Amino acid sequence: MYRTHHCGELNANYIGETITLSGWVQKIRDKGSVVWVDLRDRYGITQLIFDEARSNQNLIDKSKTLGREFVVQATGTVIERSSKNPNIPTGDIELLVTDLICLNASKTPPFTIEDETDGGDTLRMQYRYLDIRRNPIRNNLIFRHRIAQLVRNYLSEHDFIEVETPVLIKSTPEGARDFVVPSRMNPGQFYALPQSPQTFKQLLMVGGMDRYFQIVKCFRDEDLRADRQPEFTQIDCEMAFVEQEDILLTFEGLTRHLITSTTGNDPGKFPRMTFSEAMKRYGNDKPDIRFGMAFGELNKFSKHKEFQVFNNSELVVGIAVPKGNELTRKNIDQLTDWVKRPQVGALGMVYVRCLEDGTFKSSVDKFFDQTDLAHWAEITVANAGDLILVLSGESDKVRSQMSALRMEMAERLGLRDPKVFAPLWVVDFPLLEWDDESRRFHAMHHPFTSPKPEHMDLLKSDPGAVNANAYDLVLNGNEIGGGSIRIHDKATQSQMFDLLGFSQEEAEAQFGFLMNAFEFGAPPHGGIAFGLDRLVAILGGQETIREFIAFPKNNNGRDIMIDAPSPIDQNQLNELSLNLK
Amino acid sequence: MYRTHHCGELNANYIGETITLSGWVQKIRDKGSVVWVDLRDRYGITQLIFDEARSNQNLIDKSKTLGREFVVQATGTVIERSSKNPNIPTGDIELLVTDLICLNASKTPPFTIEDETDGGDTLRMQYRYLDIRRNPIRNNLIFRHRIAQLVRNYLSEHDFIEVETPVLIKSTPEGARDFVVPSRMNPGQFYALPQSPQTFKQLLMVGGMDRYFQIVKCFRDEDLRADRQPEFTQIDCEMAFVEQEDILLTFEGLTRHLITSTTGNDPGKFPRMTFSEAMKRYGNDKPDIRFGMAFGELNKFSKHKEFQVFNNSELVVGIAVPKGNELTRKNIDQLTDWVKRPQVGALGMVYVRCLEDGTFKSSVDKFFDQTDLAHWAEITVANAGDLILVLSGESDKVRSQMSALRMEMAERLGLRDPKVFAPLWVVDFPLLEWDDESRRFHAMHHPFTSPKPEHMDLLKSDPGAVNANAYDLVLNGNEIGGGSIRIHDKATQSQMFDLLGFSQEEAEAQFGFLMNAFEFGAPPHGGIAFGLDRLVAILGGQETIREFIAFPKNNNGRDIMIDAPSPIDQNQLNELSLNLK
Repeated sequence: MYRTHHCGELNANYIGETITLSGWVQKIRDKGSVVWVDLRDRYGITQLIFDEARSNQNLIDKSKTLGREFVVQATGTVIERSSKNPNIPTGDIELLVTDLICLNASKTPPFTIEDETDGGDTLRMQYRYLDIRRNPIRNNLIFRHRIAQLVRNYLSEHDFIEVETPVLIKSTPEGARDFVVPSRMNPGQFYALPQSPQTFKQLLMVGGMDRYFQIVKCFRDEDLRADRQPEFTQIDCEMAFVEQEDILLTFEGLTRHLITSTTGNDPGKFPRMTFSEAMKRYGNDKPDIRFGMAFGELNKFSKHKEFQVFNNSELVVGIAVPKGNELTRKNIDQLTDWVKRPQVGALGMVYVRCLEDGTFKSSVDKFFDQTDLAHWAEITVANAGDLILVLSGESDKVRSQMSALRMEMAERLGLRDPKVFAPLWVVDFPLLEWDDESRRFHAMHHPFTSPKPEHMDLLKSDPGAVNANAYDLVLNGNEIGGGSIRIHDKATQSQMFDLLGFSQEEAEAQFGFLMNAFEFGAPPHGGIAFGLDRLVAILGGQETIREFIAFPKNNNGRDIMIDAPSPIDQNQLNELSLNLK
Repeated sequence: MYRTHHCGELNANYIGETITLSGWVQKIRDKGSVVWVDLRDRYGITQLIFDEARSNQNLIDKSKTLGREFVVQATGTVIERSSKNPNIPTGDIELLVTDLICLNASKTPPFTIEDETDGGDTLRMQYRYLDIRRNPIRNNLIFRHRIAQLVRNYLSEHDFIEVETPVLIKSTPEGARDFVVPSRMNPGQFYALPQSPQTFKQLLMVGGMDRYFQIVKCFRDEDLRADRQPEFTQIDCEMAFVEQEDILLTFEGLTRHLITSTTGNDPGKFPRMTFSEAMKRYGNDKPDIRFGMAFGELNKFSKHKEFQVFNNSELVVGIAVPKGNELTRKNIDQLTDWVKRPQVGALGMVYVRCLEDGTFKSSVDKFFDQTDLAHWAEITVANAGDLILVLSGESDKVRSQMSALRMEMAERLGLRDPKVFAPLWVVDFPLLEWDDESRRFHAMHHPFTSPKPEHMDLLKSDPGAVNANAYDLVLNGNEIGGGSIRIHDKATQSQMFDLLGFSQEEAEAQFGFLMNAFEFGAPPHGGIAFGLDRLVAILGGQETIREFIAFPKNNNGRDIMIDAPSPIDQNQLNELSLNLK
């Protein structure tokens, strides 16, 4: 038996008891005649004391041989501390050690095992097992576990069944690039790793499972953007005999439960917004509504004068920055430079100061009078003391630019409070989006998404105008979940594949099993999938998903701790009937 | 809204209410003026009624267009049945339909959707989504979910944290063959899919996580024996600061909880047996102890006469078959043929009838007298009316043959009751086993298993005699879990790799990250992994794991429903820098 208690549980109630602890040496303070050792385990820190007055000299000598991160087992008597530490649960006591065993030594760790470490990202990843000893990372992993348990228990209580779907499946060219797995037993053939269990969960609905979920690893072989991982985890869900409303209510319930359980605050009923409204008012299909600064479209009151920049613009749009009039001219110039950076790409920025006396002072006073500016203020809902920022240009571009500016202003004003949770349903997504490069439609959600019934007729005449029963759940400006009502009949599914440029043979070869299944009594069904990594990070008040993944990969898809991927034996290649190029 | 209630919940309390149900047509009985339809969903069956006296004629006509497995939505009034069906929860009522919508038609299914189906294995796998509609398969999947939930909640309540370890890892030649995944971003390099998260869970212990578990998919590219899957699911667990006893008690607790929760019967404290005792008494390291027939070793009382077969045998061993004296001479001859089949491989079989009067009648009366046979009966614990069966030969072979015979007799006698659960810990496994083919030692458990401390000295002098802190949990003759206390220091781990024939460079290249980790304060640790597929099947009273997997693969590793694996595009191969041979 290595321990009777943990390092986080002893307090004054234990004084006088003989206790054994095991853990890591966090810190040693050697005052010559007295030595204190902070012993750490997953549960906390307990102070060990060795002193000349009360301890065997051998023991004191032994304590002095310890170093940071040594693993030790210490037995002793719990005593009251002379100088208490009110900051930790065990701060009233210490352990007067009577027996000390060094279970394992440690080399000096390459970075400090403290809440704030001196290790850079690469070093932390290379020695991830040491990084995990740090409270923030360990607590993140425990938090992730807690969220997963909350999800599983909530869904189980609501009659959902977790079903494991296969990992070795079939490659399909639609969507992102698949990771593939050569089959030794079937030379020249490959499995693919799932980008999502989409078709399997639909088949479970055809199979009558009714309510399915799975917390499941998914895989995408994409060139990695910052904070994307080639393997990621989804909370994947599907329901039969449901309409969109049933799904929104069910998963609003789940998400409220998660927010309430982790923060103690019920976020209340989630607001809803159509995709087109989100684009018009926030320039973004995942608006952060923790704060205002919604877009005001100013065309009507900005294109009637001699200001050619606006007159030549498709869209003139403004936001009212709260108390923005406090910004100096220099601040505003810097902001103008910021929006002109290539990452944002605006050509310039117009501003209007809303003065305390109700008048306006703008960078375009030459063209627009107080009446014009009063209209702008009204439309952007600007108050005295605010600053209206105006961008103009081609609609899609200017919306995207203004969205970036809005987020930047929110960041600067401290309005993106990670402790505030503002969920939002975005609904009525377009079914298709036109891709100029491939000159064809792509599925905005995926090829299994159902058109809105009232738009079925448009599928032939004007496919781009068709809306889908598709929805995203947005939390604090991040898409945390997305889903749709699915097609459940073969004819519509065929029509959809046709629109997406599949030949009938391709559709049959890749998704024939699903279309066949639709002919054997497929029920109406739909679902949603949440990105667990992102969800956990946001609920944990952070942005970087890597901090919530035990063993993440770097931006080259490499695990630098174990050094994977790596070359394999020629034998292995031979068995797989493969050659390297 | 597609339904107000499920097909399993209506009873007499609902009489008079207007209800909407959705589901599949299980059966139609058309009596001309009255039509009954059994409507099925995941939750049960409700009888719909259409009759001339009370229903609109259009509705009756419509009901007659339905076929098996059509998906329909029916609204109506709950009425009392004239002829009740006490076998189903909804048997007191039926729904007098006032509105009927056909949500989807169905082709005639290729096999019947009944508890006993007429579909063969291949057809059932090809149309697995229809197979899942059958109660037995659906209930198996729900049962599996329930077990997984029990495991997760039990372990969470005991401070275990579920941590997701990576799926894209590094290939290592030790153990079974890896599935590999070519890396597009790192040409010529490959990830491997994990055979288990072994090294990662050990690193989590080094990282101070203390108590880890994960229900996780694992992968082995093996030639598939019957009822093996290339992807399978483990309950993977690890603990730090523990000795073997801590682990046995913890996971005995979990397993008792599972058995008690699913059967209502507490199996009590699990017996324990050493590996060598299991081999001596049952010829098997995973003995089924639901029944007796333990081996009696008869050398002392069987090699002192002129019976050369025994005199030339290393081991003479017998079992007492309860009430076996009822077998006829013909039965016994058949049994002798059975043990002589190549699958068992015995050269012959001796038998002794234990007569009711306390005397014996044997097939070797010529050589052995009543005193000899009385000794045999004593050693095999035979009672009057039993039949002693005796095999002889080289020890390992005869034990294996006798084990097969013992299981066969148990099967014939109906002693392998799937409703009885007899767990058993098998402990003190050898650390190594000699492989004649490769002429080197292999790790009996895996290369990370710790030798027993008292055997450390033997590692150099007599490695084959070293026992390990390794243990298996056996349930009804199946290994459902296995684990060990791990090595946690670099020196011992290096020595182990050396014994297993790794060069220092190979060990460093493949497991350097783990041995490095051991130098930074690795705690003593150990763990266990359960095969979830098998565990669920046994707890469900069955043997075939495929029946508890939603979308299993066949014995060629092929998913015949989706037709995977399959060829991929030349483009994909080019991107991966691969050529087919």
